[in-house]
Amino acid sequence: MINAFERLKKTPPLVHNITNYVTVNDVANMILATGGAPLMADDQGEVEEIVSISSALYINVGTLNARTIDSMVLAGKKANALKIPVILDPVGVGASTLRNSAVERLVEEVEFAVIKGNISEIKAMITNVKNAGGVDVQAQDLVHDDNLDETIHFLQGASKALKTVIVASGAIDIATDGKETALIRNGDPMMAKITGTGCMLGSVIATYCGANKEHIFEATVGALTAMGLSGQYAADKVERLGEGIASFRTYLIDAMSMLTIEQFEEGEQVELR
Amino acid sequence: MINAFERLKKTPPLVHNITNYVTVNDVANMILATGGAPLMADDQGEVEEIVSISSALYINVGTLNARTIDSMVLAGKKANALKIPVILDPVGVGASTLRNSAVERLVEEVEFAVIKGNISEIKAMITNVKNAGGVDVQAQDLVHDDNLDETIHFLQGASKALKTVIVASGAIDIATDGKETALIRNGDPMMAKITGTGCMLGSVIATYCGANKEHIFEATVGALTAMGLSGQYAADKVERLGEGIASFRTYLIDAMSMLTIEQFEEGEQVELR
Amino acid sequence: MINAFERLKKTPPLVHNITNYVTVNDVANMILATGGAPLMADDQGEVEEIVSISSALYINVGTLNARTIDSMVLAGKKANALKIPVILDPVGVGASTLRNSAVERLVEEVEFAVIKGNISEIKAMITNVKNAGGVDVQAQDLVHDDNLDETIHFLQGASKALKTVIVASGAIDIATDGKETALIRNGDPMMAKITGTGCMLGSVIATYCGANKEHIFEATVGALTAMGLSGQYAADKVERLGEGIASFRTYLIDAMSMLTIEQFEEGEQVELR
Repeated sequence: MINAFERLKKTPPLVHNITNYVTVNDVANMILATGGAPLMADDQGEVEEIVSISSALYINVGTLNARTIDSMVLAGKKANALKIPVILDPVGVGASTLRNSAVERLVEEVEFAVIKGNISEIKAMITNVKNAGGVDVQAQDLVHDDNLDETIHFLQGASKALKTVIVASGAIDIATDGKETALIRNGDPMMAKITGTGCMLGSVIATYCGANKEHIFEATVGALTAMGLSGQYAADKVERLGEGIASFRTYLIDAMSMLTIEQFEEGEQVELR
Repeated sequence: MINAFERLKKTPPLVHNITNYVTVNDVANMILATGGAPLMADDQGEVEEIVSISSALYINVGTLNARTIDSMVLAGKKANALKIPVILDPVGVGASTLRNSAVERLVEEVEFAVIKGNISEIKAMITNVKNAGGVDVQAQDLVHDDNLDETIHFLQGASKALKTVIVASGAIDIATDGKETALIRNGDPMMAKITGTGCMLGSVIATYCGANKEHIFEATVGALTAMGLSGQYAADKVERLGEGIASFRTYLIDAMSMLTIEQFEEGEQVELR
Repeated sequence: MINAFERLKKTPPLVHNITNYVTVNDVANMILATGGAPLMADDQGEVEEIVSISSALYINVGTLNARTIDSMVLAGKKANALKIPVILDPVGVGASTLRNSAVERLVEEVEFAVIKGNISEIKAMITNVKNAGGVDVQAQDLVHDDNLDETIHFLQGASKALKTVIVASGAIDIATDGKETALIRNGDPMMAKITGTGCMLGSVIATYCGANKEHIFEATVGALTAMGLSGQYAADKVERLGEGIASFRTYLIDAMSMLTIEQFEEGEQVELR
C-alpha cells in the first residue's frame, strides 16, 4: 500500500465532493491532510464543469435532497465519461425510501470505482431490507472473527454484483474487488465516537484513488490503512492527555497531515486473502 | 437530575435533527458526547420515516428556508403522532418576518415538549415584538437577580400559554413547566463567545428528553446542568492554558463526553422554586 | 491600522453572512474571535430584513446555487441602499460558467466596498479566462518580489475598473483602493494547508469594515494584518508542539480572539506604496 501513498504524495489530486453539510468541513480538511485539494460544488449548473477539472469525485448521500440527487447523477456520469474515479458513500441507505431510491438510481446510472459503507449499509444496498437503526451499524451486523469468512463471501458477491470495489468499514475494515480481499486491522474504537469518521474515510479513499487511477484496489487499502493509523495515533494522544471526543477529532486530522512512510511501513496491519 | 443522566447512559437515544448548517457539526458531536446518536435529514421525502426511527426530534430555525420549514412541520407532526418529544430552538425569532411566521406556524401545527431560547427570543415569541439585534440576547433583556422574579413569572406564563416546558438560557438558565421552575447557576460567560452554544444546548436537551420521555422537565434541567458543568470545565482549562475561543469549543464538547455522575452530584447548582 | 482595530473593539458590529456551507462554522467563530457578532441567513424571504439590522454584509460564492445567488443580489442591493459595506469573496471564479455569471451579475448589480480573492480569482474576474485548477491559486499566478510591481499595477487597474478596494491574498497580501496600496508581509505558509482561511479572512475584513465604515481601506489592511499575525501565532504553536493542520485551525481562531494592540504594534509588517 506504500506505493499508493507515495504516488499520492507526488501528485496531489483535486477532489470534487458532493457531500452532506454535517461533516463537510471535516471532509475538506481531511482531504487537505491526506495530500489532496478539496472542491465542493453541488449545483446542477456547474457540477459537470467542476468534475471535469478534478481527479476524483466523492458522492456522499448523508443529507441528500431532491436538488442534490440530480447533481450527483450529472457529476457521476460526466466523471464516468472522463474516466475519473467515483466513490460512493451510501450513508443511511435502508433508513428511508428516499435514500433507497436515490442509491438505486445512482448505482444504475453511474459506475462506481469504490462503494464504501458500514456492513449494515452494504447489506441494505444488496437486500434492500429496511434498516431500522439510523446511520450506525446494527448490532446483528457487527463483524467478528467468528462471522468473518461469511462476511467476506458476502462482500465479494456484492463486489461482483455491483462491479466495484466494496469497502465495509468497522472494527475490521474489509475491502474487496471480488477477487482479492484485504482485511485491515488498524483503527481504534474511538473513531465511532465522533461524527464524520465515515465521511472522512470516504474522502480519503477518493483522494487516494484520484492519485492512483490505475490501482483502485491498492489505493483503497492504502486509504483504509492511513485512516486506521491516524485513528490509533489520535486515540493514544487523547488517552494520554485525558481528553474527550472533540480533541480526538482534531488529532485524527492532525495525524493524517503528519503521516509518514515510516509510520505506514511499521504500523500497517493488512492481511490479503 | 441525576436520574435523567443515568437513564440516558442506559439507553442511548437516536436524535433526529433539522437544524442550521452553521453549527450542525457541533450539534452532531455534542449529541454523541452526551450519549446519543445524531441523525440529520431535512428532505420532505424522508423526514417522516427518519423521525419514526428516532427517540427525539430537534428543530432549530437558525438558517431556515422555505424548503426546510415544510420539513420541520411534517417531521414535527409525525413525531407528535408517535409520542416522540419535539424540541424547538426559535433562533433569531423577532429578527425577520420569515422567522416570525415560521415559528408561529410551528407552534400552531406541532406540539413541543420543550421550547428553548434566550430570553429575547422567548419574549419575541410571546409578544411578537420586532427584535432589532440579531440572534444574541438584548441588553434590556438580561436576567439579573433584580428582575429574576419578574422573569420567572413571565416564563411561567409563557409555558402555560404555549403548553410546553420553556427554557430561557443565559447567565442564569431558567426552566419551567408552568408549575415547577428551576434556576441553574452552572455555566460560564465564555459560552457566549463561540457560535453554537445555544444550538448544542438545544440538542443536549433533545438527547436527554429522548432518553427520559416520561420526565421531560427533569430531563431538561439535567441537560442544562450538564451543559453548564461542561462550560465551567472548558473555561477553567482555557484559562489555565492561556488559550482562546476555538480551544474552548473543543473542550466544551470534550467535557460533555467525559462527564461523570460524580461531577454531576458535586457540581450541580440547581434551585427549584 | 491600529485605529481600525481600536474602533472595532469599541463597537462590535453585527455581520450578515451569505456564505458557503463548507467553512461557515469557522467564519462564524472567526467573526466572534475578531470582535463582531455573526448572523447567517440566506432565504430570499428574509435577507433584506436581516441585512438592515447589520453593520456589514459578507458574500461568499463558495457553494453558490440558484437559490442563494438571488439572495446575494437582494441583500447586496439593500445593503447599498442603507450604506452598509458589502464584501465579496468570489471563490473559484473562473472554474465554472455558473460562478462566472454569478460574479458578473453581483458586480453589475451590487456596489462592493471590498472584493477579496487570491490573485488567480482576481485575474479571472478581470479577464474572464477559464481557470483550470479549482479554488487554489495557480502556479503561474504566484506573487514574488520579481513580479510584484507588475501585480500591483494590475490590481490598481482592477480596483479602478471595479470601483472597490481590491485584495489579492497570498504569501504577500496586497490591498489597494486604486491610489494607495498596502503590502502585508504577515502570515505563514501553513494558512494554505487548511480549508477556510480565505473565507475566514473575508469575514474578518467584513467585521473590520462594519466597525470602520468611513475607513474601508484602513479597515481592510487592519484585517489582513490581524489575520496574518494570527497565522504566525498558530504556526509557531503547532511547530513547537509537533501538531498538524486541525490544531493549526484551532490556534488560528484562538489567536484572533486573544489579539492585543501590543501584538498589533509590534508585529505588523505593512508597507504602504
